[in-house]
Amino acid sequence: MRVRGVSYRTISIADDGWSVAVIDQTRLPFSFELMHLHSAEQAASAIRDMVVRGAPLIGVTAAYGVALGLRADAGDATLRRVIGLLGSTRPTAVNLRWALSRMEGVLRNEPVSSRVERAYVEAASIADEDVAACAGIGRHGAIILQRLSDRREGQPVRVLTHCNAGWLACVDWGTALAPIYAVHGLGVAVHVLVDETRPRNQGAALTAFELGAHGVPHTVIADNAGGHLMQQGLVDVCLVGSDRTTATGDVANKIGTYLKALAAHDNGVPFYAALPSSTIDWTIEDGVGAIPIEERPGREVTHVRGRADDGKLHEVEVVAPGSPVANPAFDVTPARLVTGIITERGVAPASRAGLLSLYPERAGR
Amino acid sequence: MRVRGVSYRTISIADDGWSVAVIDQTRLPFSFELMHLHSAEQAASAIRDMVVRGAPLIGVTAAYGVALGLRADAGDATLRRVIGLLGSTRPTAVNLRWALSRMEGVLRNEPVSSRVERAYVEAASIADEDVAACAGIGRHGAIILQRLSDRREGQPVRVLTHCNAGWLACVDWGTALAPIYAVHGLGVAVHVLVDETRPRNQGAALTAFELGAHGVPHTVIADNAGGHLMQQGLVDVCLVGSDRTTATGDVANKIGTYLKALAAHDNGVPFYAALPSSTIDWTIEDGVGAIPIEERPGREVTHVRGRADDGKLHEVEVVAPGSPVANPAFDVTPARLVTGIITERGVAPASRAGLLSLYPERAGR
Repeated sequence: MRVRGVSYRTISIADDGWSVAVIDQTRLPFSFELMHLHSAEQAASAIRDMVVRGAPLIGVTAAYGVALGLRADAGDATLRRVIGLLGSTRPTAVNLRWALSRMEGVLRNEPVSSRVERAYVEAASIADEDVAACAGIGRHGAIILQRLSDRREGQPVRVLTHCNAGWLACVDWGTALAPIYAVHGLGVAVHVLVDETRPRNQGAALTAFELGAHGVPHTVIADNAGGHLMQQGLVDVCLVGSDRTTATGDVANKIGTYLKALAAHDNGVPFYAALPSSTIDWTIEDGVGAIPIEERPGREVTHVRGRADDGKLHEVEVVAPGSPVANPAFDVTPARLVTGIITERGVAPASRAGLLSLYPERAGR
Repeated sequence: MRVRGVSYRTISIADDGWSVAVIDQTRLPFSFELMHLHSAEQAASAIRDMVVRGAPLIGVTAAYGVALGLRADAGDATLRRVIGLLGSTRPTAVNLRWALSRMEGVLRNEPVSSRVERAYVEAASIADEDVAACAGIGRHGAIILQRLSDRREGQPVRVLTHCNAGWLACVDWGTALAPIYAVHGLGVAVHVLVDETRPRNQGAALTAFELGAHGVPHTVIADNAGGHLMQQGLVDVCLVGSDRTTATGDVANKIGTYLKALAAHDNGVPFYAALPSSTIDWTIEDGVGAIPIEERPGREVTHVRGRADDGKLHEVEVVAPGSPVANPAFDVTPARLVTGIITERGVAPASRAGLLSLYPERAGR
């Protein structure tokens, strides 16, 4: 996507031909800076510290992290160590494990002498496939938004989204935002209601930045406001991403998603999750019981980072000193609250049968 | 309640015998400072700028504001002007209009010569009645918490609350927090989950401060986290305040309350609203359709105030520059999601019949 007229992917090979350039998302929206990763350790830190975030982008970064980690020594022991290191960075997103097991499967059978080259090729494939998947999500989801637009008689379709499931969470296009970019590009009027998404404010910082940079009309709201807006008939559809989706259609996504799904259900607002199939964990049925929910540092709750009057980024303390905090990073929206799941192959009901209708090759496994 | 060993009310007559001392709640939790109000204009600003907030405290501040406004001239024209000025400060809380119409009714029939004195007496009565009402809410609500405690076999009762409905929102004790203070005082183990309550962070700043100062165990969470915690069985009861309650039991409260009520309902967690009867608007039936929802300044969303490394309060910008924001301050929780309403007279179902069982004198009006 474009930022100040220049096209970017969130991750790419730098001009030196081997280091990996990522957008430092902890600096957004006030500063757009690239960071160069030179080792598996740096890739792991970038994932853990959320320099890169978003389930698809985490997977691609981990894949490139393997390539970086094998440059000095591509032996089996290093391969195992690097995959272990990268796999331990974030517990909830399934793409991370998916990408690493794909890399491991490919590289284990590759001679040591050509492993580094093969790792770069495979990581690039994962990145390109993610771009293609997101483009597919955009096409399929656009049909839903187009249909809602037909009912709005020229008024914008009002889409509520949570966190950032845009191109910054992926390599390009995004998941939940891909259909929005797609219809916006076709001239369909859309207006995006952007949840701030505490505690890390990815909505206010990243989604608003993305949409603003691309010229998509939007309004940032506190996470608390979505229920009221739905109750007042001011939301036509909710569209979110997912960090892990069960084989039965339960959707793990950024903390707070479940609350919006409840409000959508209570007010008859359709609620869709958009995700590449790499996000589906076919081994899990019960999302609430079986998906591990990452507990992140309390400082994300006690402190808020933003731009002060001096133009610099500062962290300010916002919680009463001495008060303990808890910081679960994801929640699970049960399939019964999800109108449909949008993947690169189409739109399906959030159920085992629905997902298998798109991925019949998964049946009987 | 006590702060660093000293007992305070949120509002009282200063040592000079006539100016009104309030706790400047915009400085909490980092700084505990009193502000003196010398005129109706200062009282109106204190309400509008949320130096004082919370439906009961707003009502008492407005009542004292009338007394201050009549000191120079207690004639009918001034009385009307002062009441108009104070009544225009906040649109949602019904206590404001209730307190002002009570003041007007009393003062209109009072000779001009004794109006100022009478205004101070009436404002003090409103304050004392609020303290008594909150104490009553505490007693009645304590029975609910005690009953939940019996099931927890010595483990703390886990109470989720939203915004600040503690003594800082009232004159003393609080509404939603009154039952918590009551059972805590009796030695019952409670643990309060405190919603941060964006955009103004009254939970993280005020409720956490109150509970910490009083020694009540608590944990601050992002507003997004409550649904997940209820889904995981980590919340025994939700207890919130109200800024206006309809005759049918719909509850207007700080934005985001509705989302927590939905999650409570979805997970079988009881959800109570605690409020003095001055908060009930007997003229309204349909909360979602009829209660005006205040739209507050966008800067409350775009900027966060907190303590920086230099120890001073700073505001930092947290939304992508140029992105529009919306800031509705309240939402309405339909009565069907409310397990019960706790008032100074007892606990009743959230329905017309339930409220009339506590306030039979309202029947047939």
